[in-house]
Amino acid sequence: MPVPGPGYAITARVEVPASASAAGDLTMAVGRVGGVVTAFDVVESHTATLVVDISCNALNEAHADEITATLEALPGVRVRKVSDRTFLVHLGGKLEVQSKVSLRNRDDLSRAYTPGVARVCQAIAANPADARRLTIKRNTVAVVTDGSAVLGLGNLGAAAAMPVMEGKAALFKRFAGVDAWPVCLDTQDTEEIIRTVQILAPAYGGINLEDIAAPRCFEIEARLRQLLDIPVFHDDQHGTAVVVLGALRNALRVVGKEVGDCKVVVCGVGAAGSAIIRLLQSNGRPGDVVAVDIEGIVHRDRAGLDDNLRWIAEHTNAEGITGSLADALVGADVFIGVSAPNLFGAAELQTMARDAIVFALANPDPEIDPAVATAHAAVVATGRSDYPNQINNVLAFPGVFRGLLDAQARDITDAMLIAAAHAIADVVSEPNPSFIVPSVFDAAVAPAVAEAVREATRKKDVAAV
Amino acid sequence: MPVPGPGYAITARVEVPASASAAGDLTMAVGRVGGVVTAFDVVESHTATLVVDISCNALNEAHADEITATLEALPGVRVRKVSDRTFLVHLGGKLEVQSKVSLRNRDDLSRAYTPGVARVCQAIAANPADARRLTIKRNTVAVVTDGSAVLGLGNLGAAAAMPVMEGKAALFKRFAGVDAWPVCLDTQDTEEIIRTVQILAPAYGGINLEDIAAPRCFEIEARLRQLLDIPVFHDDQHGTAVVVLGALRNALRVVGKEVGDCKVVVCGVGAAGSAIIRLLQSNGRPGDVVAVDIEGIVHRDRAGLDDNLRWIAEHTNAEGITGSLADALVGADVFIGVSAPNLFGAAELQTMARDAIVFALANPDPEIDPAVATAHAAVVATGRSDYPNQINNVLAFPGVFRGLLDAQARDITDAMLIAAAHAIADVVSEPNPSFIVPSVFDAAVAPAVAEAVREATRKKDVAAV
Repeated sequence: MPVPGPGYAITARVEVPASASAAGDLTMAVGRVGGVVTAFDVVESHTATLVVDISCNALNEAHADEITATLEALPGVRVRKVSDRTFLVHLGGKLEVQSKVSLRNRDDLSRAYTPGVARVCQAIAANPADARRLTIKRNTVAVVTDGSAVLGLGNLGAAAAMPVMEGKAALFKRFAGVDAWPVCLDTQDTEEIIRTVQILAPAYGGINLEDIAAPRCFEIEARLRQLLDIPVFHDDQHGTAVVVLGALRNALRVVGKEVGDCKVVVCGVGAAGSAIIRLLQSNGRPGDVVAVDIEGIVHRDRAGLDDNLRWIAEHTNAEGITGSLADALVGADVFIGVSAPNLFGAAELQTMARDAIVFALANPDPEIDPAVATAHAAVVATGRSDYPNQINNVLAFPGVFRGLLDAQARDITDAMLIAAAHAIADVVSEPNPSFIVPSVFDAAVAPAVAEAVREATRKKDVAAV
Repeated sequence: MPVPGPGYAITARVEVPASASAAGDLTMAVGRVGGVVTAFDVVESHTATLVVDISCNALNEAHADEITATLEALPGVRVRKVSDRTFLVHLGGKLEVQSKVSLRNRDDLSRAYTPGVARVCQAIAANPADARRLTIKRNTVAVVTDGSAVLGLGNLGAAAAMPVMEGKAALFKRFAGVDAWPVCLDTQDTEEIIRTVQILAPAYGGINLEDIAAPRCFEIEARLRQLLDIPVFHDDQHGTAVVVLGALRNALRVVGKEVGDCKVVVCGVGAAGSAIIRLLQSNGRPGDVVAVDIEGIVHRDRAGLDDNLRWIAEHTNAEGITGSLADALVGADVFIGVSAPNLFGAAELQTMARDAIVFALANPDPEIDPAVATAHAAVVATGRSDYPNQINNVLAFPGVFRGLLDAQARDITDAMLIAAAHAIADVVSEPNPSFIVPSVFDAAVAPAVAEAVREATRKKDVAAV
């Protein structure tokens, strides 16, 4: 059952009669209808009345309305206004641009701008590689979307995708000091997206594609990787795959199995599922992978396979099994779901191999109720923050780009992604069933990931010489 | 004669024998070859030697080399290294992206990013106008270039234009709190530039075009103004025109003439010259304007007029005069040059009307030697910082966009630009021949310009109702 979380938090400013029981009456009223009070602040105190701000977490909009109505119904209480704290955080946007140079006087202006800047431009024109030394390209990532698959909300378009891209940029800065900028494109044409990113690329040291619908995202990423001399990373694919691979490494440690002996079921073959399968294949070849989508198990003889599914069919399901998700789960060691809510329950789970590992990552409602999964599986992870083992891309993308930018990498290889996954896993020194990935706030994660990526870049450069 | 300025400043780290005369010997040596010492710092002090950083302004690279060689030639002196201070300012780029929201803990993350951000996205999808309230669009300007006309340096391309665009963005923040971001396009195709800016527009509250070559810049600006619902400003055109118009207003006050009685010669009909002519026409119609380019006076019967020159021919030169710049200057009250160095001297200047006004804005070398101009004209302005009356776009663009963003303006009208020009002029309460425009560091300028633009926007909105 969902619990009220800080993603839906309100602050109500209310007038109450000045009495000893005022605070208690309010908090009890909120609690009666299932709200969670997080703060109680007196704003004004008069002889007969108090004005207080009561902050509480709610489930959703209807629940917030119910809480407000409950407060209003208390004797002598008047609700002056209700603020949605999530919206307050977003007012005016979440990013700003700061100058790193001082512009106090004319000398400053002469060096940072005209006439001094002319020589810096000429230096870059003469030696284009100097752009990484003398411009922000050294530390910038474009967070690019077409707004076609915003979170789980679908095709909301470029403008409505901005809050996510701004948030992503804020996370880049917070966790790895990367200067990321939202690039929300008012087109959903594959060729136009590719061409636009190519045209924009000179200002950036890397491209992070985000919330672009499959299968368009595969072609955009592949083509941009060919066209550009900076790394292109699709977070919905590679970020998720990196964290899943890291979590799997530790989950297997917990149950004492080797990936080479395991049967892994991947449910959902959109951006995330496909990338997980590809990275599993690059990383020491599991015993077998079986992919499942809404039409059932992916196998070579299934009709209507597109390019992506064709590749998956040819590289997975060695035994050529067919059927439903339930059929795939029989004897499986690992379930990785990046698909839809409530696809199976205890019955199917019990057909899996002993010490089953379940990553049920559909958000907000997982493929299997985490409480049910925990009762029967050895290790359970979800995408949610209110259960242990949250699989969160924030563990990957900041450190990955920190490493890529530091190394002035021109591309991304699977070896770099696997190194990043191992680094995330290895931050957890002694994994246990409730602790297979570090906290997103663990300050050791991004530096460890960055170092792993830098090292992988060095090895690649050496190999290429 | 040019003097060494801070745009070309070096710091030399030198070892000198420890003696009472060490400092004096070094500064005298720099002075002998025309360098200007700006700082002298002792870094290390040993028994027999001192290590000092000597900073000085030079004319150019050859001059800096000469200064270094002179220091090296002093007895017992060794130059360890020479740093170019302009390049030091640019190392790693001049901008960074900062998060405006706190991301300390999971509650912060839940509001600023997932899951809370989803509701903000949905609110914008339901009501697109909310993007100006809930995203950075409220305060962002794209500084867009194709690198085709970088400063006076020509077609250096997108990457080499970055230092200018970063500097511009830094000035936007410094002078008006605007969050500007460099958008350097790796294409010089007019249609691709237009389409790319259109695709990028959702994230921005305004577009500042910069250093795009004429005549391409005219079409790009005109088409984008039709296509977009945010203001499009081409600084090389409109920024220059606004400051020139403001300066002219005060210059005419100084000499006691009315613009309606004046003959104005505009020399140079690229981006700046054309915009100056158009804004002069919008602003109360001067007596007459005569445009001159490299082929001489623009008139209706001249062969080979393009669209831009055709418009100018039809709206200027009422008397239909022909000939050279010298012919145009005879009897003129005002000369405005945005063209090339050293086009005329005292002889031609003396044929102008009494109390002539000369704006010789070619950079770094004006159309007429400012010393000569000052001897014969009543008011002289240049684009240079080492003479009085510097015509600098920094006086206009920050305040103009501050006003446009505050007013959530959807376009720019000539009335707004004229209001901005008057606001700049009116910051100078008592103009005199050496003080017709405020200092770029005058903190009153941007707020005054912003208020004038906001007011002009309100009037337009009222008129449109």
